[in-house]
Amino acid sequence: MAYNPRHMKWWGWGYEDVEFRASRHPDFWPFARSVLDIESDEFPRHEWNLESIELPEGHVDEPFVAKLRACLAPGQITSDTKERVTHAYGKGFRDLFRLRHGIAIGAPDLIVYPESEHEVSLTVRAAAERDIVLIPFGGGSNIAGCLERMDSRRMCVSLDMRRLRRVLSVDKRSFTAQIEAGVFGPDLEEQLAAHGMTLGHFPDSFLHSTLGGWIATRSAGMQSDKYGKIEDMVIAVRMVTPEGVLETRVVPKSSNGIDVKHLCIGSEGTLGIITEAKMRVHAIPESRQVRGYLFPEFEGGIEAMHACMSNECMPAMVRLNDPDKTALSLAFRPPSSGFTKIASKLYKTYLRAKGLAQPRACLMLTAFEGRQAGVSRQLQRAEAIYKKRGAVGLPAGAGKSFEATKYDFPHIRDFLLDRDVTTDVSETATVWSNIVPLYRDTIAFLRAEISNSGVRPWAGCHISHTYQCGASLYFTFGFRQQPGNEMEQYLQVKRAVQQSFIDHGATLSHHHAVGTEHLPWLAADISPVGVQAVSAIKQGLDPGNIMNPGRLLPSSSPFEDWRALSSPSRDRERVKS
Amino acid sequence: MAYNPRHMKWWGWGYEDVEFRASRHPDFWPFARSVLDIESDEFPRHEWNLESIELPEGHVDEPFVAKLRACLAPGQITSDTKERVTHAYGKGFRDLFRLRHGIAIGAPDLIVYPESEHEVSLTVRAAAERDIVLIPFGGGSNIAGCLERMDSRRMCVSLDMRRLRRVLSVDKRSFTAQIEAGVFGPDLEEQLAAHGMTLGHFPDSFLHSTLGGWIATRSAGMQSDKYGKIEDMVIAVRMVTPEGVLETRVVPKSSNGIDVKHLCIGSEGTLGIITEAKMRVHAIPESRQVRGYLFPEFEGGIEAMHACMSNECMPAMVRLNDPDKTALSLAFRPPSSGFTKIASKLYKTYLRAKGLAQPRACLMLTAFEGRQAGVSRQLQRAEAIYKKRGAVGLPAGAGKSFEATKYDFPHIRDFLLDRDVTTDVSETATVWSNIVPLYRDTIAFLRAEISNSGVRPWAGCHISHTYQCGASLYFTFGFRQQPGNEMEQYLQVKRAVQQSFIDHGATLSHHHAVGTEHLPWLAADISPVGVQAVSAIKQGLDPGNIMNPGRLLPSSSPFEDWRALSSPSRDRERVKS
Repeated sequence: MAYNPRHMKWWGWGYEDVEFRASRHPDFWPFARSVLDIESDEFPRHEWNLESIELPEGHVDEPFVAKLRACLAPGQITSDTKERVTHAYGKGFRDLFRLRHGIAIGAPDLIVYPESEHEVSLTVRAAAERDIVLIPFGGGSNIAGCLERMDSRRMCVSLDMRRLRRVLSVDKRSFTAQIEAGVFGPDLEEQLAAHGMTLGHFPDSFLHSTLGGWIATRSAGMQSDKYGKIEDMVIAVRMVTPEGVLETRVVPKSSNGIDVKHLCIGSEGTLGIITEAKMRVHAIPESRQVRGYLFPEFEGGIEAMHACMSNECMPAMVRLNDPDKTALSLAFRPPSSGFTKIASKLYKTYLRAKGLAQPRACLMLTAFEGRQAGVSRQLQRAEAIYKKRGAVGLPAGAGKSFEATKYDFPHIRDFLLDRDVTTDVSETATVWSNIVPLYRDTIAFLRAEISNSGVRPWAGCHISHTYQCGASLYFTFGFRQQPGNEMEQYLQVKRAVQQSFIDHGATLSHHHAVGTEHLPWLAADISPVGVQAVSAIKQGLDPGNIMNPGRLLPSSSPFEDWRALSSPSRDRERVKS
Repeated sequence: MAYNPRHMKWWGWGYEDVEFRASRHPDFWPFARSVLDIESDEFPRHEWNLESIELPEGHVDEPFVAKLRACLAPGQITSDTKERVTHAYGKGFRDLFRLRHGIAIGAPDLIVYPESEHEVSLTVRAAAERDIVLIPFGGGSNIAGCLERMDSRRMCVSLDMRRLRRVLSVDKRSFTAQIEAGVFGPDLEEQLAAHGMTLGHFPDSFLHSTLGGWIATRSAGMQSDKYGKIEDMVIAVRMVTPEGVLETRVVPKSSNGIDVKHLCIGSEGTLGIITEAKMRVHAIPESRQVRGYLFPEFEGGIEAMHACMSNECMPAMVRLNDPDKTALSLAFRPPSSGFTKIASKLYKTYLRAKGLAQPRACLMLTAFEGRQAGVSRQLQRAEAIYKKRGAVGLPAGAGKSFEATKYDFPHIRDFLLDRDVTTDVSETATVWSNIVPLYRDTIAFLRAEISNSGVRPWAGCHISHTYQCGASLYFTFGFRQQPGNEMEQYLQVKRAVQQSFIDHGATLSHHHAVGTEHLPWLAADISPVGVQAVSAIKQGLDPGNIMNPGRLLPSSSPFEDWRALSSPSRDRERVKS
């Protein structure tokens, strides 16, 4: 029996039997009601019923299907309704909102589960011969609109890679591992741990995303400060394109002309299917210390991060929340996070005496890992730097609480969607000198844009993923939905924040990909000649445009496309047309 | 008056008034005579005479030249003989051998010195309109055959970038600097030093190479272990292509699809002219320590390098010489390198007692730099690791001697060419687990191939540029020339070493570029589909194939092309045809 990890629930994040437990986060709903100005406490319990979903009529190309059936086992090919719905989208707001309203226009006609690169190749060849669209599918966790079908004219196949999940070899002396691309985070780490190794890549989506997805979207893990982004970890890659297998050598660095590895990384499924990569891995660190601090203000926290970087005292992870995100994080904290109510009250009094009363206080979480001695020394140096900027160390519970709940955050959105609240995130990166202006203006635009729709805005930000020259800014926002205008309302807000990134010299995304949601800003980001170059590569490796069409190449009106694909009513029209 | 740094001498390395001084390296010539089996000590003194050079007949496209003359100053355009000869080649063995035999088939028809990106753009546009070949020229230090004209059918212009030499701005908070691409190493470091900054990029060619050249060829500096290769330092880039300016944003990292910055890096002039880059820079380090050690054997030294890397104790630079390269380095040492003859004799006796008698002993040079405290600690840890593998620390003179002579090495080749000795280098990179097998086999092939030509072989290697997963291997070789068959003899040897790299899973070059010399192995290195991708990018950005044609795209018989361009007799035929 082939390995087949479970899919996420089609109507939200995580497995079907896992959801946001309000009892585990007792302060959260009162917090949300208060900041979002929600009066009601009664919301209908939804029953998610597949039968309510409107699927596009299946295109079936008989010769193509016959070829697949001749080569693959029956269990590798399916057009089951639930499978089609599950593969229709990623997990962005637009995706979940549409599915929850019965719209699955993005659904493929067929899902194929290859079990080897050979099977990927024959599927790609067969698709190229018959002009059939292929969309590579990893964990389906993408939130930028990378996975929905954009072309209703041709048959569309979702190529689900989860059965290519083996760590094929580990070279412990060279700290490299050869890994199949469909492996999920926990499975990968378990296989590497058997060799005493770790990849060191822990994105928020870790439980539900795959190596191939990480590479195709230029993902970043929480500990990128130490281990780099995924593009820094790929030593070599194999990608099956309609023109054959692009393959690079297992060498640390080269001067072999244009580095074609970087054509595969970030290609978002538009050139081919990444089947395997040789990754840089690390010995499991001797020591790991996760700590929490409160800073009297956001700017002081940013200064502390900058000072750490300037002084070669880089943590493996650092996340600095602004005051609003701090309030959210504290409200999200499990009740048993390290100290009793009385202790907590005393502690709050102490913090207040230090001038750290909310709402100005900013929570910073850090992790240091590596050799025992190095970790202790770095932590000591970092704490000295933090204290100089007025920070107060939190009890050990803060770090433990973060560790215990670090993958739970995406569940919030489902919980709030059930309560007619839209939430989403937008993230970017910029240089140190631009962080504060970008932060201030973007938060202001975001709040103004939400207010424009007549509801109370909530927006917060955290800074993370530090580099020598800058860092990432991650904005989270939420608001009550305007009944009947939910999608337009969302689009206005999302558009404002993305436009602010570009107007301030930042990038359209630090680690979430271009997809359809960020495509309108691609030419501004990489320049029109850059887009022309991408188009040329596409033409060279996928002349039939069968690989995930509609991505990375803006049409003449990409923003209009984005809107058109977003509105349930327009989608319904598109289904019919 | 426009800034105009001097060119290197056309017949060798360095300025015309600088040459290898045997008196500064008194042991070198006796060493070379002994290992290469050279009987004579009498060689004619060459007088390099421009009039003996056979230049291709100049193509002149009048409308193109008229357009340039209308926009540029007279001093920016020249077809002077010396300029044409100077821009004919880089500084590889084939280049110098041909010029010394009067062959300048690679010479451009015209040399243009733009002084702004605008002037680059108008030259590129004019060239595209008139189907004229452009070859970007930085310092002319390339040794892989990147610079010679490959197309005798069309007019050919060398675009010499040295007047675009300004550091335009420094963002000290973000550790970035915006720099014009034509700046030479020393000029760049001087401008950055005024801001307390350094790029940290010190290739062997540092005195005679430019930022644009480094980026176009994926150069590596001596301290890449700490600062990375040039591709790790580029934050953003501007490249003028025949289709317009490709421009990327000043952001630390992004998820904006395919990273088009990596199309510019390593493009070897085939897509456009790199005019400007935003580079990561560093505060000038508080402390810098250069040290020398002798290891009882090569493998022990490799183990020590590996142990340093595994223990997060990475020097800024480490170079481990094999026994033959060690002997060469010691022979190259200036007489005043730190200790008197008597001390030296005593020291040798001591080393012998430690079991470090030549020829097995291996010299390692390291540099540690950064914060004072960090450097001391790292040095201490590294020395403990080295000593465990039997290393003996050398007196401070060893490090000083390296620092004093680190840019002198390329002069050796001219000195030996004057004495009918061919020398060259080939370098690659591989993972740790493959270093010893690759080293052993390649040295053996190299010696066997040289012996095949009937002369005594000399070959040595150093390992440098360490990464977590591997390192670079740099082979140096030399032999007496077979009169009348010098070029074929060279090609056989060069071919053997390159083939060995590829047969052993390594790459065609770690930092010297593809050029014409490594082009026959490109498809093996990046796969045929990789070459197809490069070809597609070329088609997209340079549809007229005016940018440095003949590079990065192997013809049907690239190895034959390479030979054809190498033999003086064949070149002469090509001039006539």
